Amino acid sequence: MVGKNIASLKAYQAKEIPCRVKLDANESPYGFPEVLKTFKGVKTNRYPDPEAMGLKKFIAKEFGVRPENILQGNGSDELIYYLITTFGGPVLYPTPTFSMYGIISQALNEKRVEVSLDVEFDLAVKPILSAIRKKKPKLVFLSSPNNPTGNCFSSDRILKIMESASKSIVVVDEAYQPFASARGFIPMLGDYKNLIIMRTLSKIGLAALRVGFLIGSEEIINEVNKVRLPFNLNALSQAVAAEALEKKGLMRQYVKSIISEREKLFKELTDIKGIVVYPSEANFILFKVQDADGVYQSLLKKGVLVRNMKGAVDGCLRVTVGTPEENRIFIRALKNTSIEG
Amino acid sequence: MVGKNIASLKAYQAKEIPCRVKLDANESPYGFPEVLKTFKGVKTNRYPDPEAMGLKKFIAKEFGVRPENILQGNGSDELIYYLITTFGGPVLYPTPTFSMYGIISQALNEKRVEVSLDVEFDLAVKPILSAIRKKKPKLVFLSSPNNPTGNCFSSDRILKIMESASKSIVVVDEAYQPFASARGFIPMLGDYKNLIIMRTLSKIGLAALRVGFLIGSEEIINEVNKVRLPFNLNALSQAVAAEALEKKGLMRQYVKSIISEREKLFKELTDIKGIVVYPSEANFILFKVQDADGVYQSLLKKGVLVRNMKGAVDGCLRVTVGTPEENRIFIRALKNTSIEG
Repeated sequence: MVGKNIASLKAYQAKEIPCRVKLDANESPYGFPEVLKTFKGVKTNRYPDPEAMGLKKFIAKEFGVRPENILQGNGSDELIYYLITTFGGPVLYPTPTFSMYGIISQALNEKRVEVSLDVEFDLAVKPILSAIRKKKPKLVFLSSPNNPTGNCFSSDRILKIMESASKSIVVVDEAYQPFASARGFIPMLGDYKNLIIMRTLSKIGLAALRVGFLIGSEEIINEVNKVRLPFNLNALSQAVAAEALEKKGLMRQYVKSIISEREKLFKELTDIKGIVVYPSEANFILFKVQDADGVYQSLLKKGVLVRNMKGAVDGCLRVTVGTPEENRIFIRALKNTSIEG
Repeated sequence: MVGKNIASLKAYQAKEIPCRVKLDANESPYGFPEVLKTFKGVKTNRYPDPEAMGLKKFIAKEFGVRPENILQGNGSDELIYYLITTFGGPVLYPTPTFSMYGIISQALNEKRVEVSLDVEFDLAVKPILSAIRKKKPKLVFLSSPNNPTGNCFSSDRILKIMESASKSIVVVDEAYQPFASARGFIPMLGDYKNLIIMRTLSKIGLAALRVGFLIGSEEIINEVNKVRLPFNLNALSQAVAAEALEKKGLMRQYVKSIISEREKLFKELTDIKGIVVYPSEANFILFKVQDADGVYQSLLKKGVLVRNMKGAVDGCLRVTVGTPEENRIFIRALKNTSIEG
């Protein structure tokens, strides 16, 4: 009934696991209930603005680009779908990284080229350049800060890859950029015609809305826009996202608070014996323990849900930075767990 | 940079045209502002329920199926994308019909097999069966009631096609079924393993939300679910759609009112000299005039926006059934127009 690529694909497992403290999904712990009142103006019976122009104007202003440089998506996931539909494969990405690059490539029956990160979780330039030469990928996905490792890739390595892959589109996925200390790659757009940036509102308090966007040259945006479904962003999310971006002071404050909590959490994790903690520029921290499955289960029994990275980074757990109270509960639960198995 | 299929594709034109009476997009004239208060319970910072289980339970109850028989989509458009991604092409559909079957097939680089409807806009069984034998389509899309012609296809012809295309998936797109007099094809699901039904909330007052769904055997639903993006339906639309379905009395009342207005509008159009009116089982009416472009422009000058079907059904305009007041304005504007060019 279906091709091999679909037959061997499993539905994404995102089932709800009951817990008291939810630190598994890299969500912000802070919501914006005050922006929900915006809905009152939405006419439920009318199709959404297909261009999402109201929202795009806010995004354009925020990033110093023009609305023509922006493509709106029903979350970044949909934009990955569109990018692969538009440019095709092979699709190259380092591993471990965000799982959807590989899953969507498989769904769309495009070849995947995976190159392991180096021991510091940075880009392994030589093997990547060699793979670019041999496999001629149409698309390269670089998540920086990288999920699930948390680090930013070295800028000079990203630049080198963009230069070498001049016939590929290089997508720098900056989902976690708001939490990073280094500047992102938007200022590079003028210099690299094959660069496109992906951003999302999902990590900064608006995951419920499913709003992601691409920023790039008008030429690239126009091509991807051809495969975009005309009403891909519903009217409710458009209204609320625009409202939230208009009142971005609170959003920035929450991001700052998450960064300072991350630093605190990093120190506390480092102090616990038997844990290897990896530095993070994102809103989560990756750490390694002897018995990851055991620690995961023990935390869950205490009501704390983190992500078990089995299969992606064996032996590692990924904890999202929560509120100060949630982080305290997590640390206490971890200290009451037999770390060394 | 891109393949031929993308290079020759144009972005869907859905730009806003200013008007006083908007009757071009087959929307319901009636919204549900009262369900928007549901948002208050949504946590903006949390990802939506990937299974949309709350919503699926309401849909399951409404249609007498199980949640396992339902797949939620960000509008029917996204489900067409998923169906073609899952089963591939060639994709067969009659013409004229809903444009997205062809557009999405082209975006996904799958072959299109188009077979003209007969003179009564019904399915031309012989040419379709011949095309099925020769082209072996993986998917057959049948929109019934059909957009833009408005009629339901004969049930016996749909059944014959399903029987003959036993190795294809036959998608009966029932977007306009709530306005039809005949029963839809959901009761046939048990008898035809290759049948899948597509429905939407967009025509019954909730176009802003982008909620569509497939109903079919668990086997087919499971395959399509593999290519579904995990969080394809945002939390706001899930909440509002569930609320609207719970309070469906008003929705049914609006549908009844649109049907009775359609009958009135049909008679009034029939009485105008120089117009050929096609019977409709949907929330719109297709009609033919000597100078469609001229009539379209004249109506627009009077503030009434309808859809010019140029390219799909030459010489035809499509008017959505509005409120009694909107329909009155439309008829008056049409009577003040030189119909015969």
